[in-house]
Amino acid sequence: MAAVSVSPSNLKFTQNTLSTGRHPIPTGLQSLLYRHHNKPLPSSFTIKASLKSSPPPLVVVGSANADIYVEIDRLPAVGETISAKSGQNLAGGKGANQAVCAAKLAYPTYFLGQVGEDAHGDLIKDSLLEGGVNLGHLRAVAGGVPTGSAVVMLQPDGQNSIIIVGGANTSGWPSRLTPPDLELVRNAGIVLLQREIPDSVNIQVAEAAKNAGVPVILDAGGMDTPLPQELLEAVDFFSPNESELGRVTAMSTDSFEQIGQAVKKCHGMGVKQVLVKLGAKGSALFVDGEKPIRQPIISAPKVLDTTGAGDTFTAAFAVALVEGKPKEECLRFAAAAASLCVQVKGAIPSMPNRTAVLDLLQSA
Amino acid sequence: MAAVSVSPSNLKFTQNTLSTGRHPIPTGLQSLLYRHHNKPLPSSFTIKASLKSSPPPLVVVGSANADIYVEIDRLPAVGETISAKSGQNLAGGKGANQAVCAAKLAYPTYFLGQVGEDAHGDLIKDSLLEGGVNLGHLRAVAGGVPTGSAVVMLQPDGQNSIIIVGGANTSGWPSRLTPPDLELVRNAGIVLLQREIPDSVNIQVAEAAKNAGVPVILDAGGMDTPLPQELLEAVDFFSPNESELGRVTAMSTDSFEQIGQAVKKCHGMGVKQVLVKLGAKGSALFVDGEKPIRQPIISAPKVLDTTGAGDTFTAAFAVALVEGKPKEECLRFAAAAASLCVQVKGAIPSMPNRTAVLDLLQSA
Repeated sequence: MAAVSVSPSNLKFTQNTLSTGRHPIPTGLQSLLYRHHNKPLPSSFTIKASLKSSPPPLVVVGSANADIYVEIDRLPAVGETISAKSGQNLAGGKGANQAVCAAKLAYPTYFLGQVGEDAHGDLIKDSLLEGGVNLGHLRAVAGGVPTGSAVVMLQPDGQNSIIIVGGANTSGWPSRLTPPDLELVRNAGIVLLQREIPDSVNIQVAEAAKNAGVPVILDAGGMDTPLPQELLEAVDFFSPNESELGRVTAMSTDSFEQIGQAVKKCHGMGVKQVLVKLGAKGSALFVDGEKPIRQPIISAPKVLDTTGAGDTFTAAFAVALVEGKPKEECLRFAAAAASLCVQVKGAIPSMPNRTAVLDLLQSA
Repeated sequence: MAAVSVSPSNLKFTQNTLSTGRHPIPTGLQSLLYRHHNKPLPSSFTIKASLKSSPPPLVVVGSANADIYVEIDRLPAVGETISAKSGQNLAGGKGANQAVCAAKLAYPTYFLGQVGEDAHGDLIKDSLLEGGVNLGHLRAVAGGVPTGSAVVMLQPDGQNSIIIVGGANTSGWPSRLTPPDLELVRNAGIVLLQREIPDSVNIQVAEAAKNAGVPVILDAGGMDTPLPQELLEAVDFFSPNESELGRVTAMSTDSFEQIGQAVKKCHGMGVKQVLVKLGAKGSALFVDGEKPIRQPIISAPKVLDTTGAGDTFTAAFAVALVEGKPKEECLRFAAAAASLCVQVKGAIPSMPNRTAVLDLLQSA
């Protein structure tokens, strides 16, 4: 790790910063990074995320959930007890999802978040570690605060009813992040935020990153409370889906033209780059004053479960971006990752590794 | 443990059987058994469940759940996501509840049941161990079967909607119980069953116990499928609440006279002793051909949460019975335990220890 190659995205880091080894790549990830691959590689991507050394990491600050999936024929009535056809307990939460996705795409990734001191917290730790995420900045909150969770009630018509328990995602945060946490943010290659933790935490992180010249992507997913202006002003990219864009701007987003108008309003609110996820219609990156870049979906032979597809898209875009890829390529890489995600059930279990994404890009 | 005193309830055991140490009391339980108490003791109970040695244990064969409690303003609609006001993850299930209750009442208790190989299984193990239950016969089911759970949606009017996930409680049981499991049952002082595991398992256990002369109590709580005749014939006590009694017999149970008629039908179905839990109206033990014994509730200064009160009643009755107490005293002991249970929130957290029950019996 002595020799350091600085990629375009981390020019702000001095060789000295990088070689202090403050952010060693977890052992599991190293093997991912150096996994062998026989095929010629498409575009500018390589199997190894970075060439010879540990690049400044991708840092996800956000939520981690122990999600409970129950498959039911119908919702119970008030006072009624029903039996589920099946049940499963899986790690999730937008923050944890995006962190695992980035790590599986073989980019050194940290997760900064909170769990409770309970069995659900252990479930999340195991899942993040297995995904290759560095947990040096994961905090276990004492005082009986439970790990965050979502009870997902899956119904026969593909509809879900969901009950969110904020738990350690929303409670027990220190009023000021610790110096080591802020140091991690300042030394990141890129920071990814969502809206499942308090805005006050997101604002601290975004401002620390901004002051250190670290790019920040804010995924709009999570709470639908009004978006603080100071948060939007401190991020480089804002990434909503159509309905989130509509909610944030209080505008219609039915046509691409309407979406463009809503994005203009976001520019006016202080964010220059807006990455809109359009579901089956693909995605579009709007840079203030430039022509939007559109990316259609890379169609999947079967769509089994779209859970986590948005998180996969955002995280994959962030990985490509921190690797210094042109924006068109970032969008394509993200579309390929999302296409693979929807072919497998679940959120974290469906996130593709780097090889699979590159294989798809090569064949698509 | 060399000296053995055989109490009336375990006369079927030879001194030799008892002194083999097949059922050592867990260390935590030993300290419970020998905890010091200053007050004079009421009736025939002592702080120590048994006098000088380890008596044949109480064996609970049944369910263990990782219950998810979410406090919500209202149920979500189809397709809707709502936020819970609070959430908690607690060990539960009728089998685990009754095992912890018996162990907290300082009687050596085994739990024979199944969990999944997951974080929820660890939660249950921790909770049972903390309660002082011996887990030597708890099985972890492989193959991705989840630990059983119940999603309890608490609503403002005190109503609950519940979704049960059977998981390892209902799946993955061997077609025949193992010789060590059957040996445990045969050497028990008393066996407690409920209806949250397959009837086929309950029938094997009840028949093994019956053949060995071990008394069996079947709590009617759990599945509302028809009760197999062979199960009812193999148990000594059947313990339903009013609505369960009504369901099993397809008869009205509104008045005490109607309850008596329904109980007669149970006698006809093969069970000679029926212990009916009547909620605020107390309880009644019907022995075929005898006058029923009625026990009013021992009123609680505040009723905070009745969850687990039925399980507490049944388990406490079983503890008193295996200790050889007269039936009137068993009912009174159970009523005192249930009265303490309803004053604390939750199921397992609300189960009283032996000292608290004896104190209440003394003061009531």
